[in-house]
Formats: sequence, structure tokens, C-alpha cells
Amino acid sequence: MDFSEQDSVAAVRSSLASTPDPRLREVLDSLVEHLHEWLRDVRPSLAEWERGIEFLTAVGQKCDEHRQEFILLSDVLGASMLVETMEAARQSADATASTVLGPFHVVEAPERELGADISPSSDGDPCLVRGRVLAADGTPVAGAQLDVWQANARGAYDVQDDGQPLGNGRGLFTTDEAGWFWFRTVVPSHYPIPTDGPVGELLRATARHPYRPAHIHFLVQAAGHVPLTTHVFVADSPYIDQDAVFAVKRSLIREFEPVDDAELAERHGLANPFRCATFDITVQPVGS
Amino acid sequence: MDFSEQDSVAAVRSSLASTPDPRLREVLDSLVEHLHEWLRDVRPSLAEWERGIEFLTAVGQKCDEHRQEFILLSDVLGASMLVETMEAARQSADATASTVLGPFHVVEAPERELGADISPSSDGDPCLVRGRVLAADGTPVAGAQLDVWQANARGAYDVQDDGQPLGNGRGLFTTDEAGWFWFRTVVPSHYPIPTDGPVGELLRATARHPYRPAHIHFLVQAAGHVPLTTHVFVADSPYIDQDAVFAVKRSLIREFEPVDDAELAERHGLANPFRCATFDITVQPVGS
Repeated sequence: MDFSEQDSVAAVRSSLASTPDPRLREVLDSLVEHLHEWLRDVRPSLAEWERGIEFLTAVGQKCDEHRQEFILLSDVLGASMLVETMEAARQSADATASTVLGPFHVVEAPERELGADISPSSDGDPCLVRGRVLAADGTPVAGAQLDVWQANARGAYDVQDDGQPLGNGRGLFTTDEAGWFWFRTVVPSHYPIPTDGPVGELLRATARHPYRPAHIHFLVQAAGHVPLTTHVFVADSPYIDQDAVFAVKRSLIREFEPVDDAELAERHGLANPFRCATFDITVQPVGS
Repeated sequence: MDFSEQDSVAAVRSSLASTPDPRLREVLDSLVEHLHEWLRDVRPSLAEWERGIEFLTAVGQKCDEHRQEFILLSDVLGASMLVETMEAARQSADATASTVLGPFHVVEAPERELGADISPSSDGDPCLVRGRVLAADGTPVAGAQLDVWQANARGAYDVQDDGQPLGNGRGLFTTDEAGWFWFRTVVPSHYPIPTDGPVGELLRATARHPYRPAHIHFLVQAAGHVPLTTHVFVADSPYIDQDAVFAVKRSLIREFEPVDDAELAERHGLANPFRCATFDITVQPVGS
């Protein structure tokens, strides 16, 4: 029988019927249904479909070891945040909210001592970031690993910026016996997601701004606990209410407060005055 | 307000609300709805979503000037054929059925005289292909342009095969005063779509065969008529009932009949016996 608009989903699903992995079959059966529904809804012309193919091809070809344009596309379509949100819904309400990984987790962060400066090549407002990693019952988690990355005060990550060596704005820390972590940095700036690729074209074609509010990324791993991907957002940042990738959660916003304390500044090797953010992170046990 | 599973479509649509082109807004609004529906339906883990991103990235990166892996992906998911089928539904029933362009229309076909051999570098069963281009009322269309391309008798296109110079298996013809076209070639073989890329991985993971039944592609353009993309399929080909890209339409299947006629063979410069297929192509007027 000829392929028809009415039977298109059944025809393709029938070709998938011998898929050995039941989860893969479930994902693809549903993909075919929703993909064909979309196509029947918008009825693209052949020229429009070719344009779509060209766009996706360009997205793939923009990717390299330091650039992940498909994550960016997923981010601006809200897909990344929807997946994050559904994953978080499986977790206990006690855990710190998770948010998108984003496209800049592409360089191995250098291991650093607690208190180290993660942004030695950056100018900007000096800043102390500190907090504890806690279990759901409030017990401190010693030996938790924090992978941290951020843009500088001009809104650029190391991989985007000839002025920053790779690893600037990044650090890998291990919490102390009392679950504490702390590091020096500069207050990050809000920034545009990269707009020199096809996702930038899409934002321009839809009259969307490309900005994300200022934030620091955290990926937290602790033995016996579920890994947590999150951000801390700078409370007074522009775009805090209109993140281009939909990733702000109110519970992740912190004041980066001005501190004028010469003794504390000297103890941490910071110029006085400085700014300080405190961000406790609650992880949840595996299998909870 | 935090991004939520319930309001994810509204949040992303609201960011698209200022899109100047109403058609682009319509396509994207619907895309967001169906993409998020799919994600809510299958609830991918973060690891699964990352795997999906990696897959799409690999599809884009497999593309080059002679390889279009995203068309291949669209083809094996039935999307290409669905778009073709909806496009064809706008056309009159008199016109020859259209089918997918496929990923091999990537080399400019050499202009050839009527009767020329399009496959001078190919071994195989010699074959005469002929037909007329006709208007909907049966009037022959003189001066119509036919862009023709096919695999050889081992199932390889020129761009896949070091043994074939670019342009072998391809030809650009113009119909004569009576609307006729004719050319020499070899009977094409069924063949696997390219399986050395991520789409091949997908076929293996879903236990799908990669084969397409034997066919010759035609792209027909005539003044005042809608361009037509179609195939003629070889009636006795393996996989005629299970094309990996769902593109067979019964009305496009033709016998490639054995002919034993020394005089006709000599007139066309063919070895006797040879095979012969006749394929009339009806185009439809623009704006009908």
C-alpha cells in the first residue's frame, strides 16, 4: 500500500517493531507520532522542509570541542529546562533545585584548593563564594566534589575569549570535613548566549534577546548521592526575570552582598571591600 | 515564576510572541508544543537527552558536500515522505506521483544529448529508458528539462564510489519537439542507504534493514509547470514492498522488460538483448 498522510505513523512504527531495546522503541514510537503530528499541523512546503534540514545541519556543523550548538538549540526551545524540571520532579523537595548544564561545560576544570581564586585572569568585583554541601537531613557532606564554572565580568567564558587561558573561571573543589567549600572569583556578568551561529539566527528571526542573567554553574557529586547540576544566580542581575534559556529558579537566586571587612578580606586574600554570596547545596541520597 | 512542566509551552511561546514573520511563528509555536508533548510523554532522563543531543550533533557533523545525513534521518523517520505526500495532495490527481528527493542530488548532472549513455563507467544490464513529458491534458511538453540520477548495478552512486567519476549515473536532458526523452544506462540495483554514519547506527539499534528497491530519480522542470521530483522503480527489485525510506508508490513501478531486437539495439547503440522501461511523466500547470 502507498504511504499516506493518514497511515504515516503506523508505517514508520511498523518498521521499528523489532527494536530490541524496549525503551528505545518507546522513545522512537513517540517521536514518530509527535514529529508527524507537528508536520501535519504545519504542513511545510518542500522548500520549508529543506530550510529546516539546512538549519539542523548548520547547528550540527557549528559544534566542535568548545561549542555545543545543539544544547543551545535545546536550551532556547525550553527542551533542556523541561527535561531538567521533570528529572527534578523525581527528587525530594529538600534537595537544591537543579537547572540546565548549558553548553559551556566543555573544558576540564582545574583542581583547586579551597579558597583559591578561580578567575586569576579576570578583572572585576572581587567576590567570595561559600557554602556547605548538605545531606537531606542537614548533615554536612565532607569530600563532596564541586565542579564550578562561570563567565567573567564582561560575560565571557574562557572558551569564548582569547584573553582568558582555558580553565579561567573554572575550578574543581572538594568540601572540607564540615562540608564547607569556598573560593575567590569575580562577580560574573549577565551575557548573551553565542549568537554567531544558527541559534543566533533563530533568535534574531524571532526578535528574542540572547541574554542570560549572571550566574555561576555548579555540578556537585558526593558519594551515595545523586549528582546535582545547578546555578547560583546574582540577585540584582539584568534579565533575572527573562533568561533566554528559561533556567532561573527563585530558590537559586542569592544576593552577592557588599562586605567591608578588612580582616576577613585579608584572611581570604581579597581586596577590601568585596562581595560575598553564601549558597548551601542540599544533595539527595541515591535511590530515595 | 519558575519554569514548570505544566507551563513550559506557554513560557517558550511567550518568548516567540514578537516573531515578525507569522509563518515562522506558526511553525515554531507548533514545534514547541509537539516537542514538549513528546518530552512529557517519554520523560527522558538527563543522560538520555544528552545521548539525543550527541546523536543529532553526529548527524550534522556527518554532512559534507556529498553527504546529507539529516535528509537521511528525515527519510528513515518517514518525515520526508510525509512532507512529499502532503505536497502532492495539493496537486491534481492527473500528475505523476512525486516522491522523495533523497540525499544523493548533490552533484550537478552533466548535460547530455537525447539517447546518450548516462552510465558510461558502469557495468551491468544495458537498458533503454524512455518516455514523454505530458501536460495534464495529454499534450506533449517540448523543451522540458529532466535531471536524472541513479545508482549503478552494484547499488552505488558516483559520490559513494571511487570507481565512478562524478557525473556517472547522472544526466540532464531536454525533451524533443514531441515531448520525448530517452537515454541509455544500466539497470540500477537495490542498495543500502549509507550505514557508516549515525543513521546507520539508528537502523542497527532498531533492527531495521537499510535497503531501497532499485530506482532511477527524476527531477522534471517545464515552463509553466510545477517542478516534479519522482522515481521510476524497477518492478522485480528486492525490497519493492519495504523501502527503508517509505518512498515507493505503486503508480511509479515499471517493468524493465527484456527486449531482443538487434535493429533497435543498433539504432540506440546498445548491446542486444537489452532491457527497456517506458515512463511517461505528467506535469501540472502552475497555479492549478
